[in-house]
Amino acid sequence: MANVYINGVGMTKFGNRKESLQQLMYEAVSMAIVDSRIENFDALYVGTMAPEAFLGISNISTAIADYCGLNKIPAIRIGDNPSAGGSAFLQSYFAVCSNIYENVLVVGGEKMTNISTKKASKILSGMLSENERNYGATATALAALVTRRYMHEYGLDRETLAMVAIKAHTNACHNPYAHFQKKITLEKILNSKIIASPLTIYDCSPISDGSSAIILSNIKNKNSIKVKGIGHATDYLAVHDRERITEFIATKIASRKAYEMAKITNPIKQTDVSELHDAFTIFEIINSEDLGFFKKGEGGIALKNGETEINGKIPINPSGGLKARGHAVGATGIAQICEIVWQLRGEAGKRQVNKPKIGLTHNIGGFGNNIIVTILEACT
Amino acid sequence: MANVYINGVGMTKFGNRKESLQQLMYEAVSMAIVDSRIENFDALYVGTMAPEAFLGISNISTAIADYCGLNKIPAIRIGDNPSAGGSAFLQSYFAVCSNIYENVLVVGGEKMTNISTKKASKILSGMLSENERNYGATATALAALVTRRYMHEYGLDRETLAMVAIKAHTNACHNPYAHFQKKITLEKILNSKIIASPLTIYDCSPISDGSSAIILSNIKNKNSIKVKGIGHATDYLAVHDRERITEFIATKIASRKAYEMAKITNPIKQTDVSELHDAFTIFEIINSEDLGFFKKGEGGIALKNGETEINGKIPINPSGGLKARGHAVGATGIAQICEIVWQLRGEAGKRQVNKPKIGLTHNIGGFGNNIIVTILEACT
Repeated sequence: MANVYINGVGMTKFGNRKESLQQLMYEAVSMAIVDSRIENFDALYVGTMAPEAFLGISNISTAIADYCGLNKIPAIRIGDNPSAGGSAFLQSYFAVCSNIYENVLVVGGEKMTNISTKKASKILSGMLSENERNYGATATALAALVTRRYMHEYGLDRETLAMVAIKAHTNACHNPYAHFQKKITLEKILNSKIIASPLTIYDCSPISDGSSAIILSNIKNKNSIKVKGIGHATDYLAVHDRERITEFIATKIASRKAYEMAKITNPIKQTDVSELHDAFTIFEIINSEDLGFFKKGEGGIALKNGETEINGKIPINPSGGLKARGHAVGATGIAQICEIVWQLRGEAGKRQVNKPKIGLTHNIGGFGNNIIVTILEACT
Repeated sequence: MANVYINGVGMTKFGNRKESLQQLMYEAVSMAIVDSRIENFDALYVGTMAPEAFLGISNISTAIADYCGLNKIPAIRIGDNPSAGGSAFLQSYFAVCSNIYENVLVVGGEKMTNISTKKASKILSGMLSENERNYGATATALAALVTRRYMHEYGLDRETLAMVAIKAHTNACHNPYAHFQKKITLEKILNSKIIASPLTIYDCSPISDGSSAIILSNIKNKNSIKVKGIGHATDYLAVHDRERITEFIATKIASRKAYEMAKITNPIKQTDVSELHDAFTIFEIINSEDLGFFKKGEGGIALKNGETEINGKIPINPSGGLKARGHAVGATGIAQICEIVWQLRGEAGKRQVNKPKIGLTHNIGGFGNNIIVTILEACT
């Protein structure tokens, strides 16, 4: 079992992009290649949720290999919905770890703004259980149910919930790749359009275009970031089949595996920075508890106390997260890893966390399903 | 790098099935579990081309984990078009090879007959280059171009080409899982409906429903079949970008890698049985040459001489191949492996090849793209 290193990262700005998915992926891939100084790859992994539905493109892995001038190498498409990026990373990790491949290029991306928000939301809702969809569930509606239940059980107030979005937008102001680089106020959040009560539009991550890329190798160089642990788990597809809706059991299982591999016994003490899947504001709070950073019901309190800010005890989403960096679904899991790599290298500019040694990413591929937790470590 | 073994296989009958994709996959998975006597899995890999387009189902990996009672384990969806099955096998191979997972369940499947053949063909054509599609190309039209060129260059006659289909149907008569279990005559082939001249309907693989499953482990048991070599490559997406259209360069690259890993230097002497991707009759001939079984232009002659029959020098598609066993796209790559496992175990009944020791599968995921070659070996 080989050690696996991240030797290059690249990313496009997220947002309403005019370019094609191929062009966006090319941009991220080129940047990662320049960053790594590696030019020959044993395989290309493409993580994307639904280019067929969004763009009418099938055979995306070969299309991207072609477009990037990487034809003839193995090109594989991984499509676990919004954790397509995280899954592509995991699979390429196995391929390098097995010592069969030496250098692998992993690219994630999605182009979604070319169709109406209504159509895009319908495609995104395809990841929910058919039974729940038939009764009118959407991801936002389910997130609203989870939020209400959480507020009831743990006494979270609306103002604290909004702080997830306020923090995200504040951090994203310093992220040149972020979809939104503008602060928002509590007043604006509370008075904006309600999507599913109590969630307003500012509690939901946006529909973004974008791409991110990573180069994985079994050889260390001076810039290398080591993959120290990785874990993956899923849950019942239907939310109504679960024992509790205020936690994601798949996060607990996936993180337990990742911590075990990374020999982490005290996550909040041993983790210096994290990027968590905040598709909705309540998710960041729940994730921070499921990952063992805070006790159940105390994620909101920690947020309120500033513990998850860039200069806090366990900075969460210095990039701005899905909420403000944006959520180009297939790109998200890889974008999270790019951010942690920049943080661990000390290259995150004004959003730099103070000398982090170990970082964590958490990517969800459904409503609490297909969750991948990755732990990265600075080599020096 | 661990040795990887196939410890269980399962398969549904291919054809026009009334069951849902979940039910079909459950049937194949159950059979593989019974066959392996393994009950606990570290992950589920799901290979399927387009359940979104065919069925409106997204998040298929979690849906199948749920349906099979395997929830909470990592569930991953791999979707490389018609080599989704082969790709899922390859990725699970890496995961076991890396020693991170011990037992992995891999299931492939597709449910396509619920929509019209016209709609299904449109979805399948999505794997071609957009540019070629815009000029009216379909997979069958491109296969017809390749056939004409091959006939011109190598003097293949129409009657010999038809023998691919005749052999496939003859073999499939002894395969209880085959879509078609009925012989066909040369006369019937030549007089049937022309799809794209010179190809008639009997030169094309059918649209089938079906599922197949495999259990991969790093522990050997008395039934184990060893994965001896595996290789993967792709080509330019557009056929017009290629230097020659009468060969698939990706087969050559993928098989070279697989042969190297398996220490095979003389494929025709060292391979005892094979399952090749005969989506169209011409493909079987071309594949048999690209894999190094025969010299360029001599695949048809070997076929005519009976060398690829069940009792020939290198039996090709004893299962009936895509042509007659059927082509439930995501299931195909795994169904090929199931057949080779049965052959190597001596469990193939009336289609049994004489005591094979080494078998080969070849799965294509596009028009000459995303090709995966696997070499399996009997352990005893």
